[in-house]
Amino acid sequence: MTINLVQRVCLGDLPTRATQQFPHRPAVVDGNAVLTYSELEARSNAAAAGLLDLGLHRGDVVAIMMPNCWEFLVTFFGCAKIGAVCMPVNTGLTAEGVAFQFDDARPAVVVVEESLVALLETALAAFPTTSSVQRVVTARADSPRSELAGIPVMPFAALIDATVPPVEVIVEDRDIAQCLYTSGTTSRPKAVLTSHVAVMMAALSTCVQFRHERGDSCSVFPIVLPLFHVTALNCLTLPVLLTGGTVVLHRSFDPNALLHDLAARQVTHLMLLPVMWGQLVDAAGKGAPGSENVRMAIYAMAPMSQQRLDEIREVFPNADVVLGSGQTEFTPPSVLQWPSHQWDKNASWGTAVITTDVRIMGPNGELLPRGQEGEIVYRGPQAMQGYGNNEAANTAAFTHGWFHSGDVGYLDDEGVLWFTDRIKDIVKSGGENVSSVEVERALLGHPDVADCAVVGMPDDRWGESVTAVVVPVPGRTIADDAIRSFAKEHLAGYKVPKRVVVVDGLPKTSTGKIQKHRVRAQLESRSQS
Amino acid sequence: MTINLVQRVCLGDLPTRATQQFPHRPAVVDGNAVLTYSELEARSNAAAAGLLDLGLHRGDVVAIMMPNCWEFLVTFFGCAKIGAVCMPVNTGLTAEGVAFQFDDARPAVVVVEESLVALLETALAAFPTTSSVQRVVTARADSPRSELAGIPVMPFAALIDATVPPVEVIVEDRDIAQCLYTSGTTSRPKAVLTSHVAVMMAALSTCVQFRHERGDSCSVFPIVLPLFHVTALNCLTLPVLLTGGTVVLHRSFDPNALLHDLAARQVTHLMLLPVMWGQLVDAAGKGAPGSENVRMAIYAMAPMSQQRLDEIREVFPNADVVLGSGQTEFTPPSVLQWPSHQWDKNASWGTAVITTDVRIMGPNGELLPRGQEGEIVYRGPQAMQGYGNNEAANTAAFTHGWFHSGDVGYLDDEGVLWFTDRIKDIVKSGGENVSSVEVERALLGHPDVADCAVVGMPDDRWGESVTAVVVPVPGRTIADDAIRSFAKEHLAGYKVPKRVVVVDGLPKTSTGKIQKHRVRAQLESRSQS
Repeated sequence: MTINLVQRVCLGDLPTRATQQFPHRPAVVDGNAVLTYSELEARSNAAAAGLLDLGLHRGDVVAIMMPNCWEFLVTFFGCAKIGAVCMPVNTGLTAEGVAFQFDDARPAVVVVEESLVALLETALAAFPTTSSVQRVVTARADSPRSELAGIPVMPFAALIDATVPPVEVIVEDRDIAQCLYTSGTTSRPKAVLTSHVAVMMAALSTCVQFRHERGDSCSVFPIVLPLFHVTALNCLTLPVLLTGGTVVLHRSFDPNALLHDLAARQVTHLMLLPVMWGQLVDAAGKGAPGSENVRMAIYAMAPMSQQRLDEIREVFPNADVVLGSGQTEFTPPSVLQWPSHQWDKNASWGTAVITTDVRIMGPNGELLPRGQEGEIVYRGPQAMQGYGNNEAANTAAFTHGWFHSGDVGYLDDEGVLWFTDRIKDIVKSGGENVSSVEVERALLGHPDVADCAVVGMPDDRWGESVTAVVVPVPGRTIADDAIRSFAKEHLAGYKVPKRVVVVDGLPKTSTGKIQKHRVRAQLESRSQS
Repeated sequence: MTINLVQRVCLGDLPTRATQQFPHRPAVVDGNAVLTYSELEARSNAAAAGLLDLGLHRGDVVAIMMPNCWEFLVTFFGCAKIGAVCMPVNTGLTAEGVAFQFDDARPAVVVVEESLVALLETALAAFPTTSSVQRVVTARADSPRSELAGIPVMPFAALIDATVPPVEVIVEDRDIAQCLYTSGTTSRPKAVLTSHVAVMMAALSTCVQFRHERGDSCSVFPIVLPLFHVTALNCLTLPVLLTGGTVVLHRSFDPNALLHDLAARQVTHLMLLPVMWGQLVDAAGKGAPGSENVRMAIYAMAPMSQQRLDEIREVFPNADVVLGSGQTEFTPPSVLQWPSHQWDKNASWGTAVITTDVRIMGPNGELLPRGQEGEIVYRGPQAMQGYGNNEAANTAAFTHGWFHSGDVGYLDDEGVLWFTDRIKDIVKSGGENVSSVEVERALLGHPDVADCAVVGMPDDRWGESVTAVVVPVPGRTIADDAIRSFAKEHLAGYKVPKRVVVVDGLPKTSTGKIQKHRVRAQLESRSQS
């Protein structure tokens, strides 16, 4: 079945449709810059035309290296309108990391914001694997340049300066809208390719889940998490723009800036990481003007304590506090913990979203009954199209007709999902499987331990030995023996770390995930030296 | 791009996913029969397996001849699960009308409810064009038969009696989920083929628009309109089942039955035609127990008077009264009139839904600016895949890259859509275009006129002559001259009917649309006799 321009499911149509309804409403607030829907549409359309002028075709890749700014969203929609693949790059990468992604995804154009030009230049100059790049577009450059590492440069303003008729390209449902790399917790980053239909389904589903309403009671949502991650881009921003609301872009987390938003705008939604919620609640004290308008207080990463939830509810008395879980491969969220489960099932992940089927799978591909532990698997139209250039990973991810999350858990008799472990985080020691998460949780209970990672290291006797890498609370010292004694009090003997290594800090991704493969590498180099 | 079982957008997955969340909640109430989600899923899955056993493949057509009943929905989801095309048949058709659709769509299986067996038998026996039918499945038959017009019969209970593992068929996004025939207002019925992705987009979009919430505050929606129409099936029922709510099936409109629902169940949504709303409000009086739970009071066909809207608001004080407009070809709704427009723009159609772009097109395919009148055209993923067996109609419907509604109107400066005419209803008289709707509205202002239709009839002098066919109020008589004098008072001279014909009633479709082509045919036969 072919489709036509009428029927297409294309993310580039979001600002077009919203502009017909709400041309003068603020769509994107970025500091002093306020883009109405009409302006967002005009600039996105101009960007689409500009990218076509640069010779881009449907399926070509455009890299975005930008912090949260309106140019990011204009580039995203511009790409979508012509069926180009948008590849937002994590701004925390090294030049080598950037070069790896460029080598893998082969972007033809890079749109870069001033603060990341030096990083891009290093990557382009030092790594021949970046040779796919034919043009660099620079946003907010103080002194525009004509070339970067030999590649011609144009200013962003020139990309979008034309007033052009609507760009109309047939985009198929399963054309790739975006390429986002996994954070590489356990292996080298993989390119997650997601289709227009998957992102659109996720956005519509999220409108229902997060209660975004069209019309007069539309949403105002400060976006603090980085747009280069799937959550801020697909799960937070797009549903707001689908329903005529306003996103307020922040470049970093500043509790006072958020308190200012609450007072100055009718903020309806907030989404922060647990540590940010703590700081915001502390900064708010008892009375944050405007906090009564917030109807959804969303967080991610892991369940928060009952006490922290209570503190949030006190500051935001009209908000549902909701925990969202998911992953890049399955356009989030997949599972939400609703207030109704926060009293008795506070440590769970909650229940599946309406467009996702969550099950538990045994080692041979069999779906397990309620209460039994196994791998968490998903089905639903929010699934990625696949990993790029990695057929082995695709086969593994979709085996037995379900998407394999790599997480272990169980569904209780109410269909509530309980996460218990990460599959790759099992230490196989002496014929027993030891959950790294369980050991980590135990060690974090020690008053001197600020952070820790548990990994399995090769061991002649045990196969793998349970190894703990711990970061002390500032000002404290940690003794190997004390930690092991403490662990013995809380864990079965075979789970007690054989070795405890004290370090100043753990390698983490920009979202705060511990990079276990780097922890292992550091331990290896340490034992070799 | 091929898809896999994980990613598929398939309507058959709706009860599967809801069952994981809400297995014991009532999904479908049908008199004394209450199907929980778990039962709806089990029976739909059994129906899917049963249809496969009958030799059906992806793309084969299954006709449904049933009034509103749970077997209708089980058959619909059973078809969806295997990629079969579900073809609900209007229960008001003649045997000839049934035979026309069978000849056009070639169903392999017909699922028929007892009350329609005689009609089916007549169609099968009298019309050789029904020869595609290989099996009849009868629901609720008092005395089951082994054959019908020579075609083997099986009872519905046998179709769904197996307990089988989940049926898993790869269904592509653009596979046809349903085939619904246009009502044939102006021409012979056309098969509207709609894809899984279009119906799913419409259902998700409608969840947002109609504020269906998942979880504890889910919807309870009595379905009074027939499921064989797109509105009841796609726009009312599916969004409820997507979010874990309950549909309460009614076979016909009975205000007292609805009042009973209000009192006995926590009804949250109602959708009725204007005449039904009038009767319900009259029957309710001032206090209808349970009416305070209704949050959406939806209607269709045409704007209601301010007085009627006020009466509805009095009985349902917490409900938003919303007018929905759309058509089978563009899975409804396309446009909604919200309460914010019911004070000053009460006669408008309102504003586009979030997934649809509504524009006005001039005669050469140019999009017209605000305020200018032209054809109403649509774009968005809710569009049909196309008409079946009718390339000429497809070309016309999608010309210039927009779906042509056949309606005339304009968008005002707020983006509110005002319907002014139907394109096919223009009478071209003496070089002037006369809007039939305008003349009809004028004539309906005469106290003796109960109903009327205005058509253009061939005329040597005028090209077409404006011809009015009027139905008198019971007990009154109508004189041609009196009507023409009245018209002269309210209309420009060239719009005054040249001829007034008095009849007892007008030919209408089962949804109450006047069939202008039959009016014309009757006038022609009358002038020939």
